[in-house]
Order: sequence, then C-alpha cells, then structure tokens
Amino acid sequence: MQFDLTILGSNGAIPAYDRFPSSQVLNYNGNIFMIDCGEGAQFRMNKFNIKRGRLDNIFISHLHGDHFFGLVALITSFNLNWREHPLNIYAPAGLEEIINLHFKHSKTQLRFELSFHHITNDKPVKIYEDNVLTVETIILRHRLPTTGFLFKEKTNLRKIIADKITEYNIPHQTIIEIKKGADFIDAAGNKIANAELTLEPPNPRSYAYCSDTIYTESVAEQIKGVGTLYHEATFIEEHAERATETFHSTAKQAAQIAKLAGAGKLLIGHFSARYENLDTLLNEAREVFANTELAEEGLTFAV
Amino acid sequence: MQFDLTILGSNGAIPAYDRFPSSQVLNYNGNIFMIDCGEGAQFRMNKFNIKRGRLDNIFISHLHGDHFFGLVALITSFNLNWREHPLNIYAPAGLEEIINLHFKHSKTQLRFELSFHHITNDKPVKIYEDNVLTVETIILRHRLPTTGFLFKEKTNLRKIIADKITEYNIPHQTIIEIKKGADFIDAAGNKIANAELTLEPPNPRSYAYCSDTIYTESVAEQIKGVGTLYHEATFIEEHAERATETFHSTAKQAAQIAKLAGAGKLLIGHFSARYENLDTLLNEAREVFANTELAEEGLTFAV
Repeated sequence: MQFDLTILGSNGAIPAYDRFPSSQVLNYNGNIFMIDCGEGAQFRMNKFNIKRGRLDNIFISHLHGDHFFGLVALITSFNLNWREHPLNIYAPAGLEEIINLHFKHSKTQLRFELSFHHITNDKPVKIYEDNVLTVETIILRHRLPTTGFLFKEKTNLRKIIADKITEYNIPHQTIIEIKKGADFIDAAGNKIANAELTLEPPNPRSYAYCSDTIYTESVAEQIKGVGTLYHEATFIEEHAERATETFHSTAKQAAQIAKLAGAGKLLIGHFSARYENLDTLLNEAREVFANTELAEEGLTFAV
Repeated sequence: MQFDLTILGSNGAIPAYDRFPSSQVLNYNGNIFMIDCGEGAQFRMNKFNIKRGRLDNIFISHLHGDHFFGLVALITSFNLNWREHPLNIYAPAGLEEIINLHFKHSKTQLRFELSFHHITNDKPVKIYEDNVLTVETIILRHRLPTTGFLFKEKTNLRKIIADKITEYNIPHQTIIEIKKGADFIDAAGNKIANAELTLEPPNPRSYAYCSDTIYTESVAEQIKGVGTLYHEATFIEEHAERATETFHSTAKQAAQIAKLAGAGKLLIGHFSARYENLDTLLNEAREVFANTELAEEGLTFAV
C-alpha cells in the first residue's frame, strides 16, 4: 500500500526565496489527505500533479493565516470545477465562520457537501477513521489553540504464506479469516494452527505532523515510536530565545522531540524567512537526530 | 513621470497553465497602486520585484474570490514585516468584515493603520485624489456589485522652454508659477507673456480597469478617450452565450468597448481556464481593435 507524503509548502509565515507557506499531502493508497493549506496550495497541487479529485479530507492545525489562507480558494476551485462529492474539513471552529462569510459575500452556493469537524485542543482525540487509517489530534503549544495530527495505519492483517494455500487447499473465502488470525480446519477435520499458515504482519506505519509549536516534551510521549515525524523548526539555535518568545521551535529542539519519541525519521519545516540557506537548520538537527531531512517543496517521502 | 502597469495575474477564476488570478500594479512615479489581489499576488510581487513599501492604495473590484483571496495574506505579510505606514483599501464593504474576522480568529493586532473606503456601485464617484492623480469608479455589470477604476493624471503643468530661463534670467522660485500659466515680470518691469516662455503641456495620461463585466456600452461613455484600457475577455466568440450567462465578456466585445471609447490601447485579460492557447482571444480582439495586447503575467506596459 502506497503511504507517502508530498510537501507543497514548508516556509514560515512570510513567503521567501520561492518557499511557500505550510501545506502537505499524504497519499494513502491513492486517497489524498491534506494537512494545512497555506496560500497557493492549489497552485502547487497543480505543479506536483496531486489528484485533487481524490482529496476528501483536509486537516488544519490552527488559524494563523499561513496555515489556511489557500483553503477558501481551493474550495472555490473545487466548486467551479463541478465537484460533487463531499469534502471534510477538520479545523478550529472559527474557520467555518470565516469560510461561510466569504461565501455569503460572494453569493456562493456549493455544489457539494462541505462538512466541518471542529477541533478542540484540550486533549488528544480520534477525529478520523476508515478501514485502514486513524487520525488523532496531537496537543501542541502555540500562541493560538493548535493541534498536530497523528496518522496511524490500523494493525495490519497477518501475511498468509502462498505455498500453504496450495498445500492445504485453502478455499479463497477462508483466507481473510486466516489473515485475521483464525486456524484452518481442512476437509478431513484436521486443525492447522494459524502460526503454521501465516507470518507476522508488517508493522503499522505512522506519521505525525507537529506545527506550529514551542518545544513540548509531552508531544514526544503522545507520538512514541512514530515512523515519520514532521516537526516545525522555525529557527536555528542562535535564535532559540526568539523561538521561545514566538512559541516556535529550533531545529535542535525538533530533533530532541524525534529522539525522545523514538521516531524512525524526522522531517523539519516551517523555516523562518530570515534563512535563505537551510544548511544550519539541517546540521543542528542531525547532530541530535541523524535521520533528519529538510521538508522542501516538491519532495515526496515514503512514510 | 513614470506611469506603467505590471500584470501580476490575469487568469479567470480557476488558476491554470501557470496563469494566476487577477492582480496588477500601477507605478506612478514610484508610487504603487494595486488593482485586485488574487491568491498569490504577494508571491508575484516578489518575483517581479515590485517595491511593496511603496504600495499604499489597493483597489478591489468585487468580492469574487479570484479578485481578493491574496489580500489578507498580503496585509499579514506587511504586518509581519513591521510595516508602520497606513494602507488604504478601496473595496465593497463586505471585505472589511471578512478581513476583520480573519484578524479576530488569528488574534492579529496590526502595527499600522488599515483604512477601508467602502465602494458602492450606483454611480461613478471619485474615490482617490492626490497632487497628480485621481481615481474614479466605473460602473460595471456582473453577478455581484462590481466597479472598474479610472486612473487619470491631473492636467499637467506647461513645459517651460529652457533657453528662456537664461534669456530672461528667470529666478528658480518663479518657475513653478510660470509652469502653471503666469506671465513673467523681469527686473526692469517688462512683462513677458507666458505663451513666449512655455509650451503646451503633454496630454494627461489615463488608465481604465474593467473587470469583471458583461458587455456594457455605458462603460465606453464613461472612459471616453482613455489612453490604456484593460478589459476582461474571458471567452472567445464561439462561447459568447456562456459569456452572457456568466456576466462576462468575449475578447471581441472588449475590443468593441475599446473602439467605442476611442481608447489608445487595449489590454485583455481574465482568460478562462478552458483556453490553454490565447491566440484566438487576441486575434478576435484585434479584428475589431488593432492595438490590442494580451495582459500576460510579468509584462509591463507604459500607460
């Protein structure tokens, strides 16, 4: 199953050096999930060939504009392009008010159902679930109520050994139960233990998005063992004081969270417009957590 | 005096083929005036090196999002960049409500004065005036209340003949009065007639922005003799019916307005996303009005 992340924008609040505000998309087996939707996200969806017809769920971390100014434009384009299937927005309640006010003044009648799911940030909650994935909020600390998002694959089915299907003549319709852990009773009534027929399932993959936030160790606890972590890294260590004042993190702090959480991989982003070159951010993070990459626009990472 | 127009975006409502929504800037002697502010206008200001510190007046034609979705982001960037001098927005009243709601939810306190000047569209009115320029609204017909904008140089000062300054030993501080039309009295008390000292002033230049609108001949009357006209040309003639239904114009209709108005030059824009190639639009306009150009992004036209 495909499970990968494409960065549409990873700059901080002020666009600079052709870097654009926060937005990214997860592709899980062809279904697209958007996280944050900074200005111009739809332009970069076009540029990077993201299939917008497969985007049904958009998650907004908080109501600083660099995380959602592209949203009403994207919804408007969906409408002009005759979208008919529902769209879900998971966001703080104020966003619904903002979008509705736009549509009031532009006399816009949507052709499709737009469902708002209001996020609060008092405690982590599961806000999305389908057959294969769940999404939980992560409680972050920023100047506005802010949540991250933890995407987790559900525990996978066990892997059946192909040769055993032939050996025991296992009927097709029984396979799913065996993958779920059942033993097999053959035509003669013999019980074949599940352990003989199947292998351990691959580990469920997971992805955590943590932006914007001041350094907060409780975040690491909530995302323990996460496969891939995107953590904001607005500042270099030299500007750590500015990070604290503005409720942002340094690259080193992002790496400390990744280390504390035992993450597999760290992606850093939300870079301040003061840095044209991002090498210092990357190097400072890698000193603490070696498997770190810059979440630069247009890059795609396997989760 | 420099008086030119740079196109930041000239596509219709749906961004396509790397063309972006409506926005343009006039540069009059270093002062920047913005007309409409579609999504991503600030990115293209960066790209085309528009000096944003000299932008003090923004004119918004109507409240369809492709004409203003970039505005709150631009204002936010001004604020993050420590702008301190006032900014004026000329727009339908609803826009103030929308922007204030954004700032309420993002807890934004502006560091500079943001003045809204509410535009109505019942009759043309002068909405801006300084020492050298006036701006009047143009009444357009669209699905929402919409106005165009007519920028006019004030009648210029007469041009003093350099040789006469030496010949009659005209003191520096007297020159401005002579440029305004005064005669000169020399040291011996002789009167030198203004006509001997000066030449006719150059014709005042003017620029009209007309987007979005259905074909409306009264527009031509209001902008009679305009130097440069930007008129929307969303559709080719084959789709004239669609233009009427949606209260837009064809390229040919834009040219008819230019011809009726006796404009010097026509720029067409607001192209529908259905046209990858714009040649038909240009050719159809030129059949009616030869001096027509496509208002493509990044182009600068002398007014």
